[in-house]
Amino acid sequence: MRVVRSNFDKALQDLQHDILRMGSMVEEAIANAVKALARQDEELAEKIIVNEQAIDQLELDIEDKCLKLIATQQPMAKDLRRIGTGFKIITDLERMADHAYDIAKIVKRIGKEPLIKPLIDIPAMAELAQKMVKRTLDAYVNEDVDLAQSLATDDDQVDRLHKMVFDELAVLMAKRPQTINQATHLLMVSRYLERIADHATNIGEGVIFLVTGERKQLND
Amino acid sequence: MRVVRSNFDKALQDLQHDILRMGSMVEEAIANAVKALARQDEELAEKIIVNEQAIDQLELDIEDKCLKLIATQQPMAKDLRRIGTGFKIITDLERMADHAYDIAKIVKRIGKEPLIKPLIDIPAMAELAQKMVKRTLDAYVNEDVDLAQSLATDDDQVDRLHKMVFDELAVLMAKRPQTINQATHLLMVSRYLERIADHATNIGEGVIFLVTGERKQLND
Repeated sequence: MRVVRSNFDKALQDLQHDILRMGSMVEEAIANAVKALARQDEELAEKIIVNEQAIDQLELDIEDKCLKLIATQQPMAKDLRRIGTGFKIITDLERMADHAYDIAKIVKRIGKEPLIKPLIDIPAMAELAQKMVKRTLDAYVNEDVDLAQSLATDDDQVDRLHKMVFDELAVLMAKRPQTINQATHLLMVSRYLERIADHATNIGEGVIFLVTGERKQLND
Repeated sequence: MRVVRSNFDKALQDLQHDILRMGSMVEEAIANAVKALARQDEELAEKIIVNEQAIDQLELDIEDKCLKLIATQQPMAKDLRRIGTGFKIITDLERMADHAYDIAKIVKRIGKEPLIKPLIDIPAMAELAQKMVKRTLDAYVNEDVDLAQSLATDDDQVDRLHKMVFDELAVLMAKRPQTINQATHLLMVSRYLERIADHATNIGEGVIFLVTGERKQLND
């Protein structure tokens, strides 16, 4: 019995390792997407677009592992929640990667056309979002409820920045109609970053469920 | 052994029933969101906002059922895929409900301010998206790969409509800067509908995996 349990623990550790690897790839994709935008670096954007497939593949591999682990080991209670949480986390991570991909597509659309404004809030949002991903996975690995709960503050901050970007771009479009096309693209970028923060918050909620067995909403 | 299997089949049927119920709720939310927008019906929008919690709760209930079913029945191969697919489907459904909620929020923001243009493409997108949700769940229940594959065509159509809305709104904003605020909201609505169609396509891919055991991408 001890042997079986230790196999199970090893499998769980492997799973966690894979999830962290996927998390690192997603963090990098978010950082690179906004870096590519700020530098108008289409090559870097293309790299993100290509990498997204590797992230998708990793998600599918982890998914299979989760299901097989549940089916073969019949974990109960907390072990079951741990695997279920892992299964959900990778869905959120994959959606984040999708948004990094969306941003990269926008970078390619903007191309070499001069940026209509210096990018300040958008990189700040990206940095916050990226940190949220890292902390949310730390919270998962260490089962740290306090850390998971603290994500709500960052999420509020990202929401505020998004609102500022929205208002600023609306003013800019009104003043200079020739900026409209790019402004709508930047608006989407801001929205994607706000969504990425939402997904990180989702993961935080999953961690709280994992540790406490209770469902709690961190934001509206 | 036959008794166990028949219990399992019953549990699977219950699960499917719950998923279909959630699907109907989501279909209704999508239809109502765009109806509320076209009619500027804030009360209907409020109803969607309230209902979203019921959908979230149903998702959590189904999730628990899926995990317990896997853990207690140790299904293998296709049974395991079926439950895993169900688990993924409800995540997609919940994201669709989120987008219906996002649209309802926009309806409340626009309030009684006159619409800047007659809504034609957006309701067409909503109708297509809603039909996709229905068909994707039919494909799941009947394990119909052809039906699942046919979703790619609808998804392309929704993408085309989204591009048209985007271009039309960009022109409108350039001509009449006072429309910018509402136009950006409508742009978001169009984007949410496009995302809903993407989620339906995701489900279609899940169905193909369920039936064939192979991963296939229905769109880029």
